[in-house]
Amino acid sequence: METAYVMINCEMGAEGTIMEGVKSIDSVKEVSGVFGNYDVIVKLECLDIDEMRETIAKKIRLLSNVRCTTTLMCAN
Amino acid sequence: METAYVMINCEMGAEGTIMEGVKSIDSVKEVSGVFGNYDVIVKLECLDIDEMRETIAKKIRLLSNVRCTTTLMCAN
Amino acid sequence: METAYVMINCEMGAEGTIMEGVKSIDSVKEVSGVFGNYDVIVKLECLDIDEMRETIAKKIRLLSNVRCTTTLMCAN
Amino acid sequence: METAYVMINCEMGAEGTIMEGVKSIDSVKEVSGVFGNYDVIVKLECLDIDEMRETIAKKIRLLSNVRCTTTLMCAN
Amino acid sequence: METAYVMINCEMGAEGTIMEGVKSIDSVKEVSGVFGNYDVIVKLECLDIDEMRETIAKKIRLLSNVRCTTTLMCAN
Amino acid sequence: METAYVMINCEMGAEGTIMEGVKSIDSVKEVSGVFGNYDVIVKLECLDIDEMRETIAKKIRLLSNVRCTTTLMCAN
Amino acid sequence: METAYVMINCEMGAEGTIMEGVKSIDSVKEVSGVFGNYDVIVKLECLDIDEMRETIAKKIRLLSNVRCTTTLMCAN
Amino acid sequence: METAYVMINCEMGAEGTIMEGVKSIDSVKEVSGVFGNYDVIVKLECLDIDEMRETIAKKIRLLSNVRCTTTLMCAN
Repeated sequence: METAYVMINCEMGAEGTIMEGVKSIDSVKEVSGVFGNYDVIVKLECLDIDEMRETIAKKIRLLSNVRCTTTLMCAN
Repeated sequence: METAYVMINCEMGAEGTIMEGVKSIDSVKEVSGVFGNYDVIVKLECLDIDEMRETIAKKIRLLSNVRCTTTLMCAN
Repeated sequence: METAYVMINCEMGAEGTIMEGVKSIDSVKEVSGVFGNYDVIVKLECLDIDEMRETIAKKIRLLSNVRCTTTLMCAN
Repeated sequence: METAYVMINCEMGAEGTIMEGVKSIDSVKEVSGVFGNYDVIVKLECLDIDEMRETIAKKIRLLSNVRCTTTLMCAN
Repeated sequence: METAYVMINCEMGAEGTIMEGVKSIDSVKEVSGVFGNYDVIVKLECLDIDEMRETIAKKIRLLSNVRCTTTLMCAN
Repeated sequence: METAYVMINCEMGAEGTIMEGVKSIDSVKEVSGVFGNYDVIVKLECLDIDEMRETIAKKIRLLSNVRCTTTLMCAN
Repeated sequence: METAYVMINCEMGAEGTIMEGVKSIDSVKEVSGVFGNYDVIVKLECLDIDEMRETIAKKIRLLSNVRCTTTLMCAN
Repeated sequence: METAYVMINCEMGAEGTIMEGVKSIDSVKEVSGVFGNYDVIVKLECLDIDEMRETIAKKIRLLSNVRCTTTLMCAN
C-alpha cells in the first residue's frame, strides 16, 4: 500500500468544487480545505506506486481550476 | 477574539481595487500594499475561528484578481 | 473540534525519533515520514484552537532536532 | 513615516523570548506568534527608511535565536 | 538615493519585450534576463522611497506579461 | 560541454505534450514527469553557455503550456 | 525500476565530500554540483520504492553536512 | 564575459563582515545588504563560466557565516 499527501493550489473560490471532485476518487481517504500556503490537502492510499501516479496525474491534476499540486510521498 | 495576517498575491495593477474591497470588510483592521514576495497584507480580527474562515474563504479570496493567499493565524 | 496538518523539517536522521515523540502526543491522529520539501507530516485533532496552539508550540516544536514547522489549519 | 512587516523564523521554543525582546523596541507597534511558514510577525513604524534599516538590521536581527527575517516594506 | 533590485517572473517568451519596456524607465540602471527561479532582474536607483514605489507599482508591474515581482530594497 | 537541469511547472494535464516537445530538442539527454513541487525535469547537455541559453529561452520556455522554469546550471 | 532526482542543500564548502560520498552509493546514476537554489543534484535508479526510501533516508540524508533534501519522484 | 547575481542568506549580524569579504574578490562589481527574503546581493562579472564557478564555490560560499546562496546566471 502506498500513501501520499497531495497539496493543491487552485483558482480562488474553486476549493469547494475541487473537494467534491476529489471525494469521488476511490483512493482518497481524507480531503480538507486549509489555510496557509496551500488551498486543499488530500490523503491518498493506493495499491502501488503506479496507481498513485495515475490518480495524481490523471484524476486530481485534471480537475478543473487546479493550478498546481505538491506531492509528499510517504516514506514508511 | 481570533487574529490573522493574510498575505495576498494578485494580478499586476489590481492592488488598489483589492485594497478598496478589503477595507469594506468589517473584521479588517489593517490593509497595506507591500514590496517583497507578496503584494498586499491584511490584518483580520474575528470573533472566532469560523468567522475567520468565512472572511478569508468567502470575502477576501473571492475579490476579483486575487491570485493566491497565504494565511498566518496568530498563535497568541 | 479543530484539525491541522503540521509539516516538519528536521535535522537529517532525526525523522525516526521525532515521529516516536510525536506519536506520544494525544491529539496526534496520523504521523508519517515523507519525501518532498518536508520531512515529516502530522495530523492533529484538538478540542479547540487554544489546545491546537499549545500542542504545536509546546509539544511538537520543542521536540529535539525539529528545525522548523509549517502549519496548515483546516478550513472546514 | 515608514511602515514594514517583518516575519521572523527562529529556533524552536525561542518565540516567547524573541517577542519579549521585540516589544522593548520603540518603533514596534505589533508583535505576535503565528502559525504558517513563519514563527513571529512584527509591525514597525519608523520616522524614515534609515531608522527602519537600523531597527531591522541592528535590533531585530541581532536578537538571539533569530534564524532569518523576511521584510515586507509597506508601499503606501 | 534609494536602490533596489526587482526580480520579475513573466509569461514565457515575454522576457525580451519586458526588458525593452524596463530599459525605457529613467531610474533603471541595469536589466538582464536570468536563469534560476526568476526571469528578469532590474536594478533601480531612485531619489527617494516614494519615487521607488511609483516606479515599481506603476511602471514595472504594469508592463504587460509581468506575472509577479519580488523586491529587494537595499539596506545601505 | 555545459550541463543543466531545468525544472518545469506547467498547466495541469500538459505534462505529456511538453515532454514530447522537449524530446525533440537535440541537446536534451533526459526528460521525466515528476512528483513534488515541479512537474517535469529535463537534463540538457550543450556545447557552450550560449547554446544553453538559446535552448532554454527559445525552445523549452516557448513550448505551449509551460508556466515557469527553474534552471540548475551544473557547477562541474 | 524506480527513478528519482534528489536535490541537496548542504553546509558551505561540503559539496565536494558529499558528492564523493554519494558516488559510492550503488543506485546513484548521476551526481553534480549545481548553481541555483540547491547545491547538489543526484539521480537515483532503484529496484523498487522501498530501496528508494532506504537509499534516500539511510544513505544520502545521513552523509555529514547535508542540511536538507528535496525529492522529485519520477512519474513515468 | 559572464555575469551573475548571487543572493546570500547568512547568520544574523554577519552581513557587514560578509560584504567586506565579498568586496575583496576581483570579479565582484556590486554588493549590498538587502531587505526581503535574502540578506546580501552580489553582482559578479567573470571572464568565463569556469571562473564564475570558482568564484562562487571557492570564494563567496566559503566566507564564514554564509548559510546558503542562490545564483541567477545572466541569460544575455
